[in-house]
Amino acid sequence: MAEAKTGSDGPSELIGLEYLEREHAHVRARLAVTDDVRQPHGVVHGGIFSIIAESICSRATGEAHDGEAAALGQSSNATLLRPISSGYVNAEATARHQGRTTWVWDVEITDDEERVCALVRMTVAVRERP
Amino acid sequence: MAEAKTGSDGPSELIGLEYLEREHAHVRARLAVTDDVRQPHGVVHGGIFSIIAESICSRATGEAHDGEAAALGQSSNATLLRPISSGYVNAEATARHQGRTTWVWDVEITDDEERVCALVRMTVAVRERP
Amino acid sequence: MAEAKTGSDGPSELIGLEYLEREHAHVRARLAVTDDVRQPHGVVHGGIFSIIAESICSRATGEAHDGEAAALGQSSNATLLRPISSGYVNAEATARHQGRTTWVWDVEITDDEERVCALVRMTVAVRERP
Amino acid sequence: MAEAKTGSDGPSELIGLEYLEREHAHVRARLAVTDDVRQPHGVVHGGIFSIIAESICSRATGEAHDGEAAALGQSSNATLLRPISSGYVNAEATARHQGRTTWVWDVEITDDEERVCALVRMTVAVRERP
Repeated sequence: MAEAKTGSDGPSELIGLEYLEREHAHVRARLAVTDDVRQPHGVVHGGIFSIIAESICSRATGEAHDGEAAALGQSSNATLLRPISSGYVNAEATARHQGRTTWVWDVEITDDEERVCALVRMTVAVRERP
Repeated sequence: MAEAKTGSDGPSELIGLEYLEREHAHVRARLAVTDDVRQPHGVVHGGIFSIIAESICSRATGEAHDGEAAALGQSSNATLLRPISSGYVNAEATARHQGRTTWVWDVEITDDEERVCALVRMTVAVRERP
Repeated sequence: MAEAKTGSDGPSELIGLEYLEREHAHVRARLAVTDDVRQPHGVVHGGIFSIIAESICSRATGEAHDGEAAALGQSSNATLLRPISSGYVNAEATARHQGRTTWVWDVEITDDEERVCALVRMTVAVRERP
Repeated sequence: MAEAKTGSDGPSELIGLEYLEREHAHVRARLAVTDDVRQPHGVVHGGIFSIIAESICSRATGEAHDGEAAALGQSSNATLLRPISSGYVNAEATARHQGRTTWVWDVEITDDEERVCALVRMTVAVRERP
């Protein structure tokens, strides 16, 4: 059995996610579109938006707690509006609720012409470390 | 700009998704857990379940239409229940609605002890080819 | 300001929800279709399924905790598949996850011909009473 | 069997929903909190937010099509953040996507102190009339 390597985020490294701005309640990131993230019709696979949303929202929620709590995705609702086939996938996440046990984020996915292509609502559970 | 390569599903190749059973309204697939799919806490990244759900449900919906319609993810709602850190991610998808314009699937994600670890409800849009 | 009357469930009384079976992890209920629950096209309003789902899942979760914890809806995802215009709205709820801090339920809504008309996934937060 | 009365929206009349502003892509409405909309813990029942969201978004989508298409709720995802026990439930809906076959709306629910209490993402299907 492979030993779990803690600290690095495998999926976001695998797809090449770049952070552009990282504050506690606001994060921007982007991803260059390549065949690795395209599905068979040649457009970006919808699950990629969920990877991006969970990576950036969990990380920002954890950082806001300064490592004193674990931040883990609890639910993710993605609505796909418009395909992206080239250029960048641009993501902007805004915290809408910063509760004691959950943070709720809205993530807007746009293409390079600033058209909204997907909306993801992400709930991140905040659990105190033992 | 990279040319889109149609026909292959980049993300499911990238993570190594294996199909075990593929029928029109029922699909089973699995994925070996490696660091590529783990997030920083050492457990499988929640977005991976959305990748799996969208890949298997869109493909099965498209195949059921024999290539006469394009099947594209429209929404994906994932609820994460229990972390998976090793072994396989096992996915079983069942079509709950086979409509003219949308198919709705329930995907159950289990670990190797058959515990339910995530539930994904996936809506796939069916669009006639021009 | 009106004083809150605790103990009774206003919305389910308002629409006339009837319980048919109530166990900890499984509940059945139904509602007669009248103009009060129809929207302008003459079919049952989709929000009614969310009322039913939240009422029966929160109540069953609370009862399973024997009143030692408060059970409150945390999220509700409804997918509407087929209109219901007359007869009964039949609801069957099954607990899919019974965790320490959340219970997750699947609610299937059928018409009198046993056709699936809506699916609701309901997450109920369990909070210890102070 | 009761004959369906088309044209009026039963549930929004039942709970007393008031429209404050109605434009094609932006709607505001409110509801006075009474026992009819409270659940047993004395706070507004979460399903009420789904009733409000579906009523205002379906109506606005239909009106934007000038009666030439039927607008029907297709999915509704509600995230409940903070209880409301008195005063008004205030709802503000903004269209995020105005497609040929679906409109997607974000509905923000606030209390009288302008605190965000719930977020609903509503997808409305647009079907041409026969």
